[in-house]
Amino acid sequence: MSRILAVGSVAYDSIETPFGKRTEILAGSATYFALAARHFAKVSVVAAVGDDFRKEDLDVLASRGIDVSGVESKAGRTFLWAAKYTDDLRGRTTLSTELGVFADFKPRVPPSQSAFPYLFLGNIDPDLQRGVHAGMERPSLVVCDTMNFWIEGRREALDRTLKVIDLLVINDEEAMLLSGEGNLARAAGAILKMGPKALVVKRGEHGAAVFGKGYLLFVPALILDGVVDPTGAGDTFAGGLVGCLAALGLGGRSALDETSMRLAVSAGTALASFTVQGFGVESLVGAAPAAIAERHAQLQKLAGWSGMKLPLGESA
Amino acid sequence: MSRILAVGSVAYDSIETPFGKRTEILAGSATYFALAARHFAKVSVVAAVGDDFRKEDLDVLASRGIDVSGVESKAGRTFLWAAKYTDDLRGRTTLSTELGVFADFKPRVPPSQSAFPYLFLGNIDPDLQRGVHAGMERPSLVVCDTMNFWIEGRREALDRTLKVIDLLVINDEEAMLLSGEGNLARAAGAILKMGPKALVVKRGEHGAAVFGKGYLLFVPALILDGVVDPTGAGDTFAGGLVGCLAALGLGGRSALDETSMRLAVSAGTALASFTVQGFGVESLVGAAPAAIAERHAQLQKLAGWSGMKLPLGESA
Repeated sequence: MSRILAVGSVAYDSIETPFGKRTEILAGSATYFALAARHFAKVSVVAAVGDDFRKEDLDVLASRGIDVSGVESKAGRTFLWAAKYTDDLRGRTTLSTELGVFADFKPRVPPSQSAFPYLFLGNIDPDLQRGVHAGMERPSLVVCDTMNFWIEGRREALDRTLKVIDLLVINDEEAMLLSGEGNLARAAGAILKMGPKALVVKRGEHGAAVFGKGYLLFVPALILDGVVDPTGAGDTFAGGLVGCLAALGLGGRSALDETSMRLAVSAGTALASFTVQGFGVESLVGAAPAAIAERHAQLQKLAGWSGMKLPLGESA
Repeated sequence: MSRILAVGSVAYDSIETPFGKRTEILAGSATYFALAARHFAKVSVVAAVGDDFRKEDLDVLASRGIDVSGVESKAGRTFLWAAKYTDDLRGRTTLSTELGVFADFKPRVPPSQSAFPYLFLGNIDPDLQRGVHAGMERPSLVVCDTMNFWIEGRREALDRTLKVIDLLVINDEEAMLLSGEGNLARAAGAILKMGPKALVVKRGEHGAAVFGKGYLLFVPALILDGVVDPTGAGDTFAGGLVGCLAALGLGGRSALDETSMRLAVSAGTALASFTVQGFGVESLVGAAPAAIAERHAQLQKLAGWSGMKLPLGESA
């Protein structure tokens, strides 16, 4: 079974949407990523939590076959983000961001994990991303996420990171900001000159586009009833995507072919459809392989393909 | 060759976008509709223009095989709309709306056109739409557009119109407003109880969804460089869609099947991709069948289908 090392946040969120409110629930980019990717591959998480982090929350990951030996517990508070969404769930206001132990998080790759072939660099400081990359022996596929905060504030460091990755996964607003282009097609062209061999642009409820070598593809999002909390959808999407690529055994910069990327993006899309239907990870953790396959079948009907099959059940 | 009667506006627009400015150029919902639909079927337009309407603008339609015998010339000014778009082309401000002769437009179906099998009710007062419908003998497919203005101001009249149509084509904002639902899946479910047998929801640059009997499908928009003016994209889309359905020979409420609707929506999408790449109709009028087929091939690659072929070249 393929092994993925994922660095990012394991955190708490306090979330309010028109459908309810939750306080200090399990969250974080690496959490969502791992809970999605574990359906396809064995995931090891590198992160830091505070001494307030509840054991039962670590067990949510560990009991599902996710390797949490790289999650360091440090004196201090766990990263806590609080936000309130607008009535249509399309906008949100950050109420507070308390970095806690995440403020001086220096991720270290455990020696036993340095030879893993798949590396996911979650949304952290680009220098830290590159440090994790340097701690790996020779990953065959490096996937990276980033956000406006780093694009605006740490551009030179980010430019260096972009040169060592294979696949960048960001949303359309970030693609515009990173490229300085107001048009997505031109933005993607500019970004592909910065280093990545392929670019996935997430468009939320509308779907995702892949700009690859010699191809351009689009996968719609499922049109869902019962959406209650969009938090974590993007990280879940990345987890399904990278997990699927790992299960397919795809490594190397030339391997991000069109057919595999369509399947991988549809895997991410299917997984993310669960995340948004519950607060935090509550719907995602309950998604069984049969239910994921059913969502994927719905997605195929929506998009008009047939015959694709997710490499589910590769996990322990 | 199938015949379509289309009622709507033939008008002038004054448009400013970050890419330029045009004053009093040929526009209107029926204009865009007809210039797209004519690639698949014979279109007759019912509209009213003022005595200021330039003959060369009517010739833009007539010289392309569009029947303009139902376009009445009346004393007064042609409908003129002026708008300015935001830098990202996603928002716009209406600067002025001068209804002119459109203010007391009472569309009449020419007797020679009352037996046409396909009817497109463009975005006008719902009572006028129903009047046109009543003037037709027994259309086998009735497609309707509407907008916020009628949904908010003429709801009872609109409700009556919705009961006589087969297919409603609106954007997602209008679908939410019409249904009172904040979620698209629920909005569509509610609208399908109001009368239409199928619903097409336009999502602009993101694509379009069809909610039909026993199916749900999505067609992405092309990811385009060189977008300069989005005006008329929705009307062009409707023209390609209805034209394609007419060329396929689809009439009757049971005929809006999934395969045909996917092809028809992709026809509309391919045509609309030209409209947005020029001001007004300047790019649309120059789109040759081979170029439209090429756009459709690009769309198939983007969406991941294969083997579909547009019924192009059915026009005179």
